Amino acid sequence: MTEQVTDAAAKKPADASKANIGVVGMAVMGSNLARNLAHHGYRVAVFNRTYAKTQKLMAEHGDEGDFIPSEHVEDFVASIAEPRSIIMMVKAGGPTDATIDELLPLLSPGDVIMDGGNAFFRDTIRREKYVSDKGFHFVGAGISGGEVGALTGPSIMPGGTPESYQTVGPMLETISAHYKGEPCCAWMGPNGAGHFVKMIHNGIEYSDMQVIGEAYELLRGVGLTNDECAAVFEKWNQGELSSYLVEITVDVLRQKDPRTGADFIDIVADRAKMKGTGTWTVQTALELGVATTGIAEAVFARAESSLGDLREAGQKALQGPDRTVQVKDKDAFIEDIRKALWCSKVVSYSQGFDEIRAGGQEFGWDINVAEAAKIWRDGCIIRAKLLEQIRKEYTDDHKLVSFMCAPSIAPTMADYQDSWRRVVAAAITAGIPAPVFSATLSYYDMARAPRVNAALTQGLRDLFGSHTYERVDDHGHFHLEWSGDHSETRID
Amino acid sequence: MTEQVTDAAAKKPADASKANIGVVGMAVMGSNLARNLAHHGYRVAVFNRTYAKTQKLMAEHGDEGDFIPSEHVEDFVASIAEPRSIIMMVKAGGPTDATIDELLPLLSPGDVIMDGGNAFFRDTIRREKYVSDKGFHFVGAGISGGEVGALTGPSIMPGGTPESYQTVGPMLETISAHYKGEPCCAWMGPNGAGHFVKMIHNGIEYSDMQVIGEAYELLRGVGLTNDECAAVFEKWNQGELSSYLVEITVDVLRQKDPRTGADFIDIVADRAKMKGTGTWTVQTALELGVATTGIAEAVFARAESSLGDLREAGQKALQGPDRTVQVKDKDAFIEDIRKALWCSKVVSYSQGFDEIRAGGQEFGWDINVAEAAKIWRDGCIIRAKLLEQIRKEYTDDHKLVSFMCAPSIAPTMADYQDSWRRVVAAAITAGIPAPVFSATLSYYDMARAPRVNAALTQGLRDLFGSHTYERVDDHGHFHLEWSGDHSETRID
Repeated sequence: MTEQVTDAAAKKPADASKANIGVVGMAVMGSNLARNLAHHGYRVAVFNRTYAKTQKLMAEHGDEGDFIPSEHVEDFVASIAEPRSIIMMVKAGGPTDATIDELLPLLSPGDVIMDGGNAFFRDTIRREKYVSDKGFHFVGAGISGGEVGALTGPSIMPGGTPESYQTVGPMLETISAHYKGEPCCAWMGPNGAGHFVKMIHNGIEYSDMQVIGEAYELLRGVGLTNDECAAVFEKWNQGELSSYLVEITVDVLRQKDPRTGADFIDIVADRAKMKGTGTWTVQTALELGVATTGIAEAVFARAESSLGDLREAGQKALQGPDRTVQVKDKDAFIEDIRKALWCSKVVSYSQGFDEIRAGGQEFGWDINVAEAAKIWRDGCIIRAKLLEQIRKEYTDDHKLVSFMCAPSIAPTMADYQDSWRRVVAAAITAGIPAPVFSATLSYYDMARAPRVNAALTQGLRDLFGSHTYERVDDHGHFHLEWSGDHSETRID
Repeated sequence: MTEQVTDAAAKKPADASKANIGVVGMAVMGSNLARNLAHHGYRVAVFNRTYAKTQKLMAEHGDEGDFIPSEHVEDFVASIAEPRSIIMMVKAGGPTDATIDELLPLLSPGDVIMDGGNAFFRDTIRREKYVSDKGFHFVGAGISGGEVGALTGPSIMPGGTPESYQTVGPMLETISAHYKGEPCCAWMGPNGAGHFVKMIHNGIEYSDMQVIGEAYELLRGVGLTNDECAAVFEKWNQGELSSYLVEITVDVLRQKDPRTGADFIDIVADRAKMKGTGTWTVQTALELGVATTGIAEAVFARAESSLGDLREAGQKALQGPDRTVQVKDKDAFIEDIRKALWCSKVVSYSQGFDEIRAGGQEFGWDINVAEAAKIWRDGCIIRAKLLEQIRKEYTDDHKLVSFMCAPSIAPTMADYQDSWRRVVAAAITAGIPAPVFSATLSYYDMARAPRVNAALTQGLRDLFGSHTYERVDDHGHFHLEWSGDHSETRID
């Protein structure tokens, strides 16, 4: 860090009254980001609508670096060196628009406003146009890593004009996490590209957590205690499943309830919440025609877990096995689960990267998929060993159609798939819901099938709605006279 | 029909120059609907932007009833008795808006414009407001049954003001399909309610076709020929699976290719197309927090079938079993498939009806779920024996939480679930993709589980993002100081 501090200090504005960068919004993410910037030697202007929060930051952390607190937004903007970099860390939606409108009259040409919240990428496209029409730059940047990451080094996914990245990019790269010396921050593309990539990151986070949850339930199904499950995940975290989410799964499973002393996991209500990014990922995938079944099943699993009326009715009315998995060799089955988890993870990442590429094409961003994998290798919630492999494969072959088909991946999938099938079949037999394990396996089997049942669908659609069909032995679209002489008509 | 003709004829306007109703758009759906109205004794004004299509209708079918063709829209509107009923059967999107704007200046107070196309329900909400602000009525009506249904009796799902239904409803009920004397047409609720219900109808149609396709692939997997598969479906159609889609599956599987004489199903390209209603159903379900996993997997299966690059790469790179199902007792396994199909169908209908109820609440329509089931019993593409059972259950218990938990359903699910599990496990072992069979089973197992893995999700979310958790033994939201002293803080 010393080197970065020196480097950043050298870049400080000569006028000591001016800051390198400003941060609006002193809730935990904003103040941690401001502290992170200050830790790296930047002079940081800070502002919050309610001044008390700014004062709190100064009182608690003001000695950690070079801050310029302002009570009024005019003073805040005036305290930043031009061209200004201003990071907004305010609530998504209305507050973001309100903050933009507050800042705009105070800006100078070349200034950059950056939204570091979890905005929907379409809102970012709209805001970028709105701000650039007024002659300024707007950057929509996804930031992942939670509160700790914001303070110690998050993964940052900025989108905007290349010029805006020249202004704000170097500072973002400095404060981001670093993987073997490389910053976990890179320009993703114009306007909404950064928030789009962050949206997919969060979607993958949903499926990652759900497959870990399914593995956990299966481990419980073969009779492991929570502590034994923790030990299994801890061991897995040493190998190809190594990832932040597996690592903290160990912590959660080992945690005791401070109130009762029982295993913490057993006192937590089993109703998962969500804030929208997973939902957006799947809604957008549907629009793009990308089959992100892993993320979709994870989002639906969270939804179903919170449907109290359904679960109450279901527990009363529905019968089934008691979730005990009968296996002859427990250790062998645990290894099967590990392989199944890896396969499902690969497929759901693969689907997510397919959506990044499809979105990049649809919205004119031309996102470098390898760069997305590169900046997710550290700092973000889904950081995982797998991401370096993804980066390498997409770097080696920019046109790689599907990560699960990559040269370093497909052979392992081939090796592991028997385990995967055994695990899903065992879950189904035992009555343990494993929606992402099974959805990703169905997707895998559809992708490799020389023939799928869609031919029947097209036959039915032509019969009831004249929707036409294509042929395996000819080009064009055809219709069969189902209620007439059963002859075939070429449509085009 | 004689009785209806007499009845309708009695209602004809005294002035023979005036029509009971007008139809705009003489493509196949519009002209078939106009003919259907004429067959029932109504005097029908007909209009098409290109007059030649109207002339074609008159030349081919003008003697089937009492039509008033017009070349100009002014004459068309003038030819309809007030208060006017005008059905638009034009392309969704721009053409619908253009037609509305063409009609509006010519209308009189109390007139009703009805959109009978597959509009997105939000567009219908917007259009209803637009037209009613101008002092007229707008009805958004879903119409299902395909071309043949439009002519001989479709299922019709109208939404709009109760007054508008008094004008156009009786005619719609007359020309709709009838189930044991009851019309397959009923008022669904205000503005977008009709198109919303039609959207869900189409979503269920997707899952219905996909589960039939999965059953078909499994039947092929145990070695049946297409003709043998047809015989199985034909037999199933005599029992509780009786439905239009199963019935026409028999026709498609028995059909020979007119060109080569091979089985038709084998020459159809296995790339399924779609027109948007399935996608909307799932996107809206995600917004409403309803877990329509069956429909979602069906939509994704269609998408994946059309991803040529993915399938080409997958067929080259991915390994797996050869889709042969090994069973000792083939007939017993076929019966297992029948039961699995029934269970998956029940769950995906159940999810669809949950979405109708959730949408009705969210958008202020208060849709009568039993009425939706009632008008789907005949005429529409998803007409099925099951729908009378659904209607009965929702009529007996308006607050029924989930159809799969209904008193006449849950015990059969309990009986059938071993078969269901055997079939999904067999598909997974054989490498046959069965995404809806397995997704609906996971949903079933989640609904009945006393405890799901969402507790782990919440623990992880609290650790990395302070998203809080709830407790099984207390009210409120809590946060654990994961990076501090591991104490618990009550948030609210």
